[in-house]
Amino acid sequence: MDHPRAVLFDAYGTLFDVYSVGLLAEQLFPGQGQALGVLWRDKQIEYTRLVTTCDDGAHYQPFWDLTRAGLRFACKRLGLDLTAEREQQLMNQYRHLSAFPENREVLQALKSRGIATGILSNGDPEMLGVAVRSAGLENLLDHVLSVDSVRKYKTHPDAYRLGTQATGLQPAQIAFVSCNAWDALAATWFGYRTLWVNRYQLPFEELGTQPIRTGSTLADVLAFFD
Amino acid sequence: MDHPRAVLFDAYGTLFDVYSVGLLAEQLFPGQGQALGVLWRDKQIEYTRLVTTCDDGAHYQPFWDLTRAGLRFACKRLGLDLTAEREQQLMNQYRHLSAFPENREVLQALKSRGIATGILSNGDPEMLGVAVRSAGLENLLDHVLSVDSVRKYKTHPDAYRLGTQATGLQPAQIAFVSCNAWDALAATWFGYRTLWVNRYQLPFEELGTQPIRTGSTLADVLAFFD
Repeated sequence: MDHPRAVLFDAYGTLFDVYSVGLLAEQLFPGQGQALGVLWRDKQIEYTRLVTTCDDGAHYQPFWDLTRAGLRFACKRLGLDLTAEREQQLMNQYRHLSAFPENREVLQALKSRGIATGILSNGDPEMLGVAVRSAGLENLLDHVLSVDSVRKYKTHPDAYRLGTQATGLQPAQIAFVSCNAWDALAATWFGYRTLWVNRYQLPFEELGTQPIRTGSTLADVLAFFD
Repeated sequence: MDHPRAVLFDAYGTLFDVYSVGLLAEQLFPGQGQALGVLWRDKQIEYTRLVTTCDDGAHYQPFWDLTRAGLRFACKRLGLDLTAEREQQLMNQYRHLSAFPENREVLQALKSRGIATGILSNGDPEMLGVAVRSAGLENLLDHVLSVDSVRKYKTHPDAYRLGTQATGLQPAQIAFVSCNAWDALAATWFGYRTLWVNRYQLPFEELGTQPIRTGSTLADVLAFFD
């Protein structure tokens, strides 16, 4: 089979470390930072699904707003006093998540082979713009695609379709990289050649479909080009 | 406003106690029963969303199969050895979940007022049939509606629409009762007159919509008829 002609990366959890908010969370809520980081993330993702499943975009809210809603829920659930100031601090931290260290090198390696690169993310355009600039990746990405334009979050096919539309390629000509198992699963259903980067040694989803490849760092995407 | 003319209940978590599997889980995996019960339930629900969001029913699997998939994932995630025998025991327990004690009395009170009653559930017809018969509720329910007929799980509007189709009523003429906050939320979006029964003192979802009523037991549905 031919090599992929483009590589699309998920952003949150894949290029950017969503749990890097945990340090600040731990400072603000000693002993609860990790629990808050996990529940915040889970709820944020749950909310993307609730607004997507219900009614064809009628209840869509941008990722930034769902991120804030998830934070508020998580703090209430854990009994944490989220003052306006703490909320602002945590949301500001979310805007400037740490990038995983191998990002730049992997993107450079792809560019040097003439492969188109991009992000296909639930994040809204402003969030993605800040994150990409903060990580200094703007010159290494040909496409920064946000589901905001279709008002449906991954795992909706309309979201994944942004990648084929932007590149003019077929799904099987595109490698799709995500650290989120649900994302790698649904991208595989869509027809992308998927790499699931299993950073946290988790089991894959038990729905009868496996990603094309599984790796442990983003650099494993280069195996598609061997 | 007129009283509702029908009351529809969610099944799993609302009429039937999904955490009643915890006792057996604790026997099989000492010290991990509660964690398994929670993760199993979370994953089961997550899977309903993944298959619903992806592609208009193409990846639909019945609730029984997703329940099994959720159990398998949860055990792998927690490092528990799910033998075939243990899986069969736990799945059999899931088929015979405990009913919450107030169910019968509430349904009888509604029937005595001439109100139509029903279940609108993610469960597949066979699961629902066994659960309803086990709880001895078959003569107290006018409708047992499964999303299986539309191959989309709640919170998809096609799932909620089963209730208006079966009763011939408008959404605002139907009270919808769920202990699951996400279900009460989406049913409110659909237009039902919702009661969220908050059995576990949880915060409601932070998406800008509140249920019409909040209560602590199913009996609070009778307040719609005061």
